[in-house]
Amino acid sequence: MVEEMIHTKLTQAFPPVAQALGDLLFRGGKRLRPAITLLAAKFHPCDIRQVLPLAAAAETLHTATLVHDDVIDGALLRRGHPTLNAKWSPGATVLAGDYLFAQAADLAAETQNTRVIRIFSRTLTTICDGELRQLFSTMDWGQPKEEYYRRIFAKTASLFQAAAESGAIISGAPEKYIELLSAYGYNFGMAFQIIDDILDFVGDEEVMGKPAGSDLRQGTVTLPVFYFLQEDERAPELIRILEQERINGNGHFEEAVELIRNSGAIAAAEREARQFVGKAKDALVQLPDVPARDALAHLADFVVERRW
Amino acid sequence: MVEEMIHTKLTQAFPPVAQALGDLLFRGGKRLRPAITLLAAKFHPCDIRQVLPLAAAAETLHTATLVHDDVIDGALLRRGHPTLNAKWSPGATVLAGDYLFAQAADLAAETQNTRVIRIFSRTLTTICDGELRQLFSTMDWGQPKEEYYRRIFAKTASLFQAAAESGAIISGAPEKYIELLSAYGYNFGMAFQIIDDILDFVGDEEVMGKPAGSDLRQGTVTLPVFYFLQEDERAPELIRILEQERINGNGHFEEAVELIRNSGAIAAAEREARQFVGKAKDALVQLPDVPARDALAHLADFVVERRW
Repeated sequence: MVEEMIHTKLTQAFPPVAQALGDLLFRGGKRLRPAITLLAAKFHPCDIRQVLPLAAAAETLHTATLVHDDVIDGALLRRGHPTLNAKWSPGATVLAGDYLFAQAADLAAETQNTRVIRIFSRTLTTICDGELRQLFSTMDWGQPKEEYYRRIFAKTASLFQAAAESGAIISGAPEKYIELLSAYGYNFGMAFQIIDDILDFVGDEEVMGKPAGSDLRQGTVTLPVFYFLQEDERAPELIRILEQERINGNGHFEEAVELIRNSGAIAAAEREARQFVGKAKDALVQLPDVPARDALAHLADFVVERRW
Repeated sequence: MVEEMIHTKLTQAFPPVAQALGDLLFRGGKRLRPAITLLAAKFHPCDIRQVLPLAAAAETLHTATLVHDDVIDGALLRRGHPTLNAKWSPGATVLAGDYLFAQAADLAAETQNTRVIRIFSRTLTTICDGELRQLFSTMDWGQPKEEYYRRIFAKTASLFQAAAESGAIISGAPEKYIELLSAYGYNFGMAFQIIDDILDFVGDEEVMGKPAGSDLRQGTVTLPVFYFLQEDERAPELIRILEQERINGNGHFEEAVELIRNSGAIAAAEREARQFVGKAKDALVQLPDVPARDALAHLADFVVERRW
């Protein structure tokens, strides 16, 4: 039903745009954000049709950020398929992303719930702020680790939190439930992004649909990099390779990825992701024992088990 | 008060972003959209503080679209100053525009009025749709004139209409007034964009702060071009120059601008702009005779008299 709603909205777009965005939206994607939105609405009786535009808004907003990410990173592959960026001019790709932002805002507005609408507009602000901070902190190997947590909250956890919290609000659940589901979404999102950052090093390129080490190549300092720089004696070697790569792209970049991949940094980062999953599940324990609670717990486990 | 509200919101941004967007927002700009929002709220007693976030949202949304326009066109000058695009990477500029879209959505949400919020999200959809249509219709010298009206409604008139209509709604004015102010905003916006398209040919480059013929250089077919192609016997010459320019940029582009500038196409387009201004003023006549009505009439006259 969520996909149908997204699809119906897209058909109003200028035909070549509807076609290209449709390809993007309906070829892959785990639909985690709408799933969490729908499940978070299951702790209080409500009409699911009220939750649908919200779930569709979360997925559309997520896709809009992916489109702009791909322009910014110059990425040519996502989910194993050519990005919009690979096919269109940067200008057209920027506008297609803007179009999706507009659709997301419109879907959120369809809920007619000003609290939820406000959460969405604030989350969009947070996401953009996080992306800008990430861009301005590239190649800064000495940045404090707090910057990392701030960035992954902004770029990922904030939307999972918004999805869970808004789902609960729309269902009319009591404030205590809303808080718990908000905490679930936050911790789920933090774990999700840490695993994403790990998979960038250890994931199977075929399964991931993009080349390994993409983040590091952009100069984005992720959790495995922090652990490596802090705890591995080969930290100076890593920095030397990355700095040489930055200056003249001397082709030793693969060695940098290898260094991190085969170090203790991966396991250390994974332990942290598991801690966030634990906190997400702790929040669930305090909620009523309905089937949606088990589904959310399984989703949290999936986050650290996933391979793509 | 509107500028103060925009400024206060900006200070929450990541400092280098707040600085750059502040330069952009507070160095020029006629503030027509907030002016129209505020004036449209003057036909029914209301607290101006309710209208302020709306007026700020209109200006912020407008600025967001300018930032992305400059990325898409590769423009280096706007209002006589370097664009953000000229100073930052395309990626950072895209994100700065996104940040302003988010701020605009948040300001609109502050009104807590779901009807107004919906108008804003639909307008953003319309604007993006128009920009995409413009991009996909460049260099298409045979496109129907209806495409032009559709595009200028989408990229310009829709936001003026939304500003006027929303101002009236927030003030609590009767539906009849809302309709009339909506018609004013629509016709004002259509006239505004036609004059903009004329100034691109005849405007003083110093005063405009950008080179003449910028639209034509992008391949955007505007009203003077339509008139020239329809009514001037030198139409085939113009197409020959433009096609040569497209293929090998042979430096005769200035001649194309000269052809249109010195033809009857400029006066014909101006007559059309004046017709739209006439319709905008017709809508005002049916509204109560308050000082805001005169101010809106003067603004409509300014649109066709302006030189920048």
